[in-house]
Amino acid sequence: MSLYSEIFYSTEINGLFSDRNTIAEMLRFEAALAQAQAKNGIVSETSAAIIVDCCDAYLIDIEKLKSEIKLGGNAAIPLVKQLTRIVKNNDVEASKMVHLGATSQDVVDTAMVLQIKAFLAWLEPKLSQLRLLLVALTQKHRSTLMIGRTLLQQARPITFGLKTAGWLQRVKQCQELISETKKRVLCLTLGGAVGSGNDSINRKVQLTMAELLEIAPPSGVGGLSEWASVLGILVGSLGKIAKDVSLLMQTEVGEVLEGAGEGKGGSSTMPHKRNPVTCAALLANATRTPHLVATVLSAMPQEHERSAGLWHSEWEVLVELMTLTAGSVERAIELVGGLEVDEKRMLANLEVTKGLIYAENVSLALAPKMGKMQAHELVEKACKMAIHQQKHLKEVLIDFQLDLPDLEELFKPENSIGLSLELIDEVLRQV
Amino acid sequence: MSLYSEIFYSTEINGLFSDRNTIAEMLRFEAALAQAQAKNGIVSETSAAIIVDCCDAYLIDIEKLKSEIKLGGNAAIPLVKQLTRIVKNNDVEASKMVHLGATSQDVVDTAMVLQIKAFLAWLEPKLSQLRLLLVALTQKHRSTLMIGRTLLQQARPITFGLKTAGWLQRVKQCQELISETKKRVLCLTLGGAVGSGNDSINRKVQLTMAELLEIAPPSGVGGLSEWASVLGILVGSLGKIAKDVSLLMQTEVGEVLEGAGEGKGGSSTMPHKRNPVTCAALLANATRTPHLVATVLSAMPQEHERSAGLWHSEWEVLVELMTLTAGSVERAIELVGGLEVDEKRMLANLEVTKGLIYAENVSLALAPKMGKMQAHELVEKACKMAIHQQKHLKEVLIDFQLDLPDLEELFKPENSIGLSLELIDEVLRQV
Amino acid sequence: MSLYSEIFYSTEINGLFSDRNTIAEMLRFEAALAQAQAKNGIVSETSAAIIVDCCDAYLIDIEKLKSEIKLGGNAAIPLVKQLTRIVKNNDVEASKMVHLGATSQDVVDTAMVLQIKAFLAWLEPKLSQLRLLLVALTQKHRSTLMIGRTLLQQARPITFGLKTAGWLQRVKQCQELISETKKRVLCLTLGGAVGSGNDSINRKVQLTMAELLEIAPPSGVGGLSEWASVLGILVGSLGKIAKDVSLLMQTEVGEVLEGAGEGKGGSSTMPHKRNPVTCAALLANATRTPHLVATVLSAMPQEHERSAGLWHSEWEVLVELMTLTAGSVERAIELVGGLEVDEKRMLANLEVTKGLIYAENVSLALAPKMGKMQAHELVEKACKMAIHQQKHLKEVLIDFQLDLPDLEELFKPENSIGLSLELIDEVLRQV
Amino acid sequence: MSLYSEIFYSTEINGLFSDRNTIAEMLRFEAALAQAQAKNGIVSETSAAIIVDCCDAYLIDIEKLKSEIKLGGNAAIPLVKQLTRIVKNNDVEASKMVHLGATSQDVVDTAMVLQIKAFLAWLEPKLSQLRLLLVALTQKHRSTLMIGRTLLQQARPITFGLKTAGWLQRVKQCQELISETKKRVLCLTLGGAVGSGNDSINRKVQLTMAELLEIAPPSGVGGLSEWASVLGILVGSLGKIAKDVSLLMQTEVGEVLEGAGEGKGGSSTMPHKRNPVTCAALLANATRTPHLVATVLSAMPQEHERSAGLWHSEWEVLVELMTLTAGSVERAIELVGGLEVDEKRMLANLEVTKGLIYAENVSLALAPKMGKMQAHELVEKACKMAIHQQKHLKEVLIDFQLDLPDLEELFKPENSIGLSLELIDEVLRQV
Repeated sequence: MSLYSEIFYSTEINGLFSDRNTIAEMLRFEAALAQAQAKNGIVSETSAAIIVDCCDAYLIDIEKLKSEIKLGGNAAIPLVKQLTRIVKNNDVEASKMVHLGATSQDVVDTAMVLQIKAFLAWLEPKLSQLRLLLVALTQKHRSTLMIGRTLLQQARPITFGLKTAGWLQRVKQCQELISETKKRVLCLTLGGAVGSGNDSINRKVQLTMAELLEIAPPSGVGGLSEWASVLGILVGSLGKIAKDVSLLMQTEVGEVLEGAGEGKGGSSTMPHKRNPVTCAALLANATRTPHLVATVLSAMPQEHERSAGLWHSEWEVLVELMTLTAGSVERAIELVGGLEVDEKRMLANLEVTKGLIYAENVSLALAPKMGKMQAHELVEKACKMAIHQQKHLKEVLIDFQLDLPDLEELFKPENSIGLSLELIDEVLRQV
Repeated sequence: MSLYSEIFYSTEINGLFSDRNTIAEMLRFEAALAQAQAKNGIVSETSAAIIVDCCDAYLIDIEKLKSEIKLGGNAAIPLVKQLTRIVKNNDVEASKMVHLGATSQDVVDTAMVLQIKAFLAWLEPKLSQLRLLLVALTQKHRSTLMIGRTLLQQARPITFGLKTAGWLQRVKQCQELISETKKRVLCLTLGGAVGSGNDSINRKVQLTMAELLEIAPPSGVGGLSEWASVLGILVGSLGKIAKDVSLLMQTEVGEVLEGAGEGKGGSSTMPHKRNPVTCAALLANATRTPHLVATVLSAMPQEHERSAGLWHSEWEVLVELMTLTAGSVERAIELVGGLEVDEKRMLANLEVTKGLIYAENVSLALAPKMGKMQAHELVEKACKMAIHQQKHLKEVLIDFQLDLPDLEELFKPENSIGLSLELIDEVLRQV
Repeated sequence: MSLYSEIFYSTEINGLFSDRNTIAEMLRFEAALAQAQAKNGIVSETSAAIIVDCCDAYLIDIEKLKSEIKLGGNAAIPLVKQLTRIVKNNDVEASKMVHLGATSQDVVDTAMVLQIKAFLAWLEPKLSQLRLLLVALTQKHRSTLMIGRTLLQQARPITFGLKTAGWLQRVKQCQELISETKKRVLCLTLGGAVGSGNDSINRKVQLTMAELLEIAPPSGVGGLSEWASVLGILVGSLGKIAKDVSLLMQTEVGEVLEGAGEGKGGSSTMPHKRNPVTCAALLANATRTPHLVATVLSAMPQEHERSAGLWHSEWEVLVELMTLTAGSVERAIELVGGLEVDEKRMLANLEVTKGLIYAENVSLALAPKMGKMQAHELVEKACKMAIHQQKHLKEVLIDFQLDLPDLEELFKPENSIGLSLELIDEVLRQV
Repeated sequence: MSLYSEIFYSTEINGLFSDRNTIAEMLRFEAALAQAQAKNGIVSETSAAIIVDCCDAYLIDIEKLKSEIKLGGNAAIPLVKQLTRIVKNNDVEASKMVHLGATSQDVVDTAMVLQIKAFLAWLEPKLSQLRLLLVALTQKHRSTLMIGRTLLQQARPITFGLKTAGWLQRVKQCQELISETKKRVLCLTLGGAVGSGNDSINRKVQLTMAELLEIAPPSGVGGLSEWASVLGILVGSLGKIAKDVSLLMQTEVGEVLEGAGEGKGGSSTMPHKRNPVTCAALLANATRTPHLVATVLSAMPQEHERSAGLWHSEWEVLVELMTLTAGSVERAIELVGGLEVDEKRMLANLEVTKGLIYAENVSLALAPKMGKMQAHELVEKACKMAIHQQKHLKEVLIDFQLDLPDLEELFKPENSIGLSLELIDEVLRQV
């Protein structure tokens, strides 16, 4: 799956989920456990120090570990076995204290939480960066006139800033969600064999260990399904940006372009094309992630104190969700940061319908005089004539000799953007 | 789909999403719009009063409306048409003010939000009720000894209260989630044709209208994907309870039973069976909802200012999610409220392995003397002998003549529940 | 969910899955069982005749049945109970023979198969109709020139017939799939309590009963997951048609239009719009069905001889899949049957890029002379100049003074459609 | 994601989808294209021979290629670029003929098909092996008595062979499905820029090329969604086996065990456990694959002649589906091949209910005398008494003094397995 490591993913973050790094996080758990037990008088300081020294991922034989996962069913069992041997080579007493009172799920789930934490340390600044780019884009195009489209049809004018303000709001909302979710996700798991705890991993040990790892103490329930959902919402929100851009990039629309890199977006057979390559990656990820979220939700009704299969299904899926999210965030930054906006084309496209997009203006102007329904019907008739005679709607209406002194004003885009500017300013105030 | 209206769903709530009620909520939008516009001087008080009077779902020809949805693509278009005619029959001037400045999506999405609000008014007390039942069950069985099971294997003793405390924590966490989500979900949509607003639906009108409908003003981004996720997490959490109960009800386990109703859980061919009928409904719903959540997430990358198809896919799916959630919550209340616990069978099952479940106790007791790994291996050997010779592990260990003065104590379940009681008390304190 | 019964669904088929009809199919099972047992000497002809007479859905109290489903967990238990009472009122002896040797799953699953059979009797002629419409459309537009688009960019000319031939091939493939799947789906279920059969439902009874119901004898494994997949593929294939049409209907493209009905596709606020309403319904369905297929696949690992929950999750989901499929097929027929094609606009759009779409022609013409890579690079340069200078590519190339005597021919769309016509003819030959 | 390469996947097959091998398959396409063009006089034999020689994956700089994928959006563009340079270093003329007339999608999709073909060459013998193992298991346990269970409750006796015959039928059905699907999946894609073909890739070239690659000529529509569905059905079918085994392995049931390897299934803290590790892997995969199938189905409504995003989403997901399938098949072979069956425990478990499982026998024996409903009710009463008084049902019935001369026989499991043996023999005959 790595052929596409630079398009659907982020090379900055892929390493975080490497075998070596996953093992390193599991060993961080074991080291912190020994330290916390030492601080609470359960393990000697000497033993703990030796264990901590041995918790080095480079001492682990990963190939051996992988083949043993098949026997034990998870990565913790063979890892603890290797670690214990390494410690024993240094100190027999200390080796008796390795993994004391803990169980496989404690290690595996906490290591996942530590990876999520590291991922968040990457993600949050990236989202701030994306947000700043969107703020700048929105400010720049606050008044850039363009057509708004509903059901893929030209509807009424907006400004490009209103569109990007919507993108910005989505990103902001995701930041809020992430911020609220963190407290339920970044928790230690330390329950022992059946989650009932024991003297070696008592409340004090839990608190000390949580402090050492800079996460919250055990909450009893994980937040992984919530975490998965939030990532799904984030990737979907970025997919929305890509959907808009890819549609705006259509040859017949041509209002924006992905920033051109050397050779970027070229087709192997058509030298003139400017393919929405970055959008395609964002949309591909947004197509995949909802199903990964559903996998995690499907795995919720786990059997008793630990599941046979459902728990196992989460491991890779959560990693896939995070790596795809990272790819989407990185692509979104590239997309928004490099976006080329063709303001002239936007203006030109406002004239494509020969005034039909201003029909509602006329309708609204007529409504107080003749009622909404009749106004609607009259304008509908005028539109049909305009289409049939290939005339501009304004001309047709002039022929109708309606009582509309400000007809000219009704056909100016800047008069038809409603409260776009106010709405944009409100969004910018909030962020 | 209604044949199963009483098993997968809740008859209390199904009506909330009836055609009539959906239309009523859409008319509440139209009425509040007119009122808010009147309060802000956009529409006359008289016109608004007439519109409000006409906003009565019983005046609407639903069959006609349904057939016209196919033409317009959503329910708002034919509804506004019918409403306008009704108003016009009363007052021509007022009819010009119907739906002024609004668009279909404003009506449809706000009506959905109003239904969510009504749903929440039902859901939240139900969750409180479920929580109280779980608190009572946990208190009652705080010390009820049973075996904890991992990977479907007997592992170590816990108390039944520890298991139910885990269920309780999940419900509590869902309540928190719902509470945090509400602020992003319960918002007015009022953006007009392309979301840019206009003078008829300016900020003042929005604020007044939001106040009238007792929801928040427009946020610019919906929270529907978050709402869907939260429902998915709730149904999954309740599915966990059902999974545990259905496994504990197995003939060979027999530790709990769904409360017996007259004829409940009977099989058509086997008069003796006590089928986990309520659990089956909860598990069926938990099988379906993750995919419905994914549908909503899949629908996120919507085109431009309104989507052609993705928006449409949300309508029924959100309703299905809510009605299945209601069914699950109602079933969970029945299940937890009526649960019969067989404490004797729980005790008896602790002896099924002839002491093997206490192996870790022995292992931990020996670890300080000989190291974790060796202790583990010695006990593994003893276990194999016990199995092979069909003897109790305690007897085998006595033959080994180990230095374990407290051997007897190691085989008492009440000494093997770790910190179960403390953990339970902590959970009960929190809720 | 019925508010949208005419847009996402088909009114022709919705009734097939009504409560009354579902019960009627279950009673057909009971009647055929009694008849088959009579023909094989297990039940008297008299008893069977009485049972058959009583198998009338209008004798069943549906509300009572629904409330009892909750007790027994499926519809068969209360139905058999009511049926037995009805028979008993006629003849005590006969009442002893009702449902003899069968179990709930036999009734429920076979009734589903009978509904699938009825659904197929509707579906297959509809697909033939759709296929004929696509054949006619393809024949009509065999030579209608238009631009082919990849990654939403204009690429090279094709004919509209080539596009519709692709739609046609998809429909044809779905017909093949359905045809192959039928033999595995349309099977009797008759296994008794645990699927082991018994003397009352022996092989002879099974064969007779299968013959009476015009389905295949029990196969031991259902084909429901395959059936779900096939429906998913069909709805996705029709979604492809809708995606293309909705994009071609964009204001800036305008090459096709959904057929106009009275008031169809109108917007509530913009009188000039022609919304792709039918496409939206098709795309909404195509957004939902993949997740319903996944639900059925998720429900495959069922416990032992009958599942607690996974089986239950299939019932409504399969019906939903079928009703959404029916809606999509009906919408596709309307869409294809009514499609308006604007050949002039198609021709005009071929000129939008000022010749850039012919760049590959030039590239291919130059390749034998200078190598593919160099030709590609030279043409890329020419394209950039054309864009920059807002000139037609042909003019730029003339300035380059290349050795290209047939330059003019390279820029004619009819010379650039490759083997479109041959491919179309091949497809038409096959269907 | 590779930490779990040996548990969820198959090391035998993982390599098939490596970067190097994917590129090798893409180069096989390019080589075959040149050869086919040479055989049809489009390219000189000399040029083709040089191109074929250069189509060596070890000549490709993979890291460079990966970073360029991001620019072009797929692997074909940078690969063709590298290949052309390599060929040019050998022969300038030949370099002009590389990839002649083809487009990226032709290469990418055909390479996927070639990988599917290689995967099938591995899969089909594996499924035959699994089938043989299931035949042997079924033959061995044709008469091994055990309890059948519905809704997780003991129901009536079956034989273990009947259960395994059901597993066997599922595998056989998947083999049939795969066999039928192949013809639609294993097809060449060769349509050029917009799928319209051109003289360099005319029908003759297509036929020759298909012959060279030993796949079918282009069909115009892919079968990838069907292929994904079939894999989903296979993994779900194997998940069913794992679900049954994991439940039968429960400590309180203990009827079968996964074959013990050195250290297999051990728990890190409980030396006595025999965890269903292989089942957990199979169930984890069966939890994940439905969602991957749904991803492929979601990607069906692709835009125009090539999609921006949906096409891209298929690449990794199809590979993931195949590698998880391979893991499940390999695990299933291990599971079935090594299964330990405890026939004594199966017999013992038949007595757990103290005769209640024979209640239906009694009910059926009484039905002809008193009617089905009354018999059911009488036996229900007897069962309740038996439970209440903790007596064996047989004893209770003796006290009832019913007219049942063969009472003893009704309580023998071998008399209660219905037609199990006949059904098993029928299944064995078919395979």
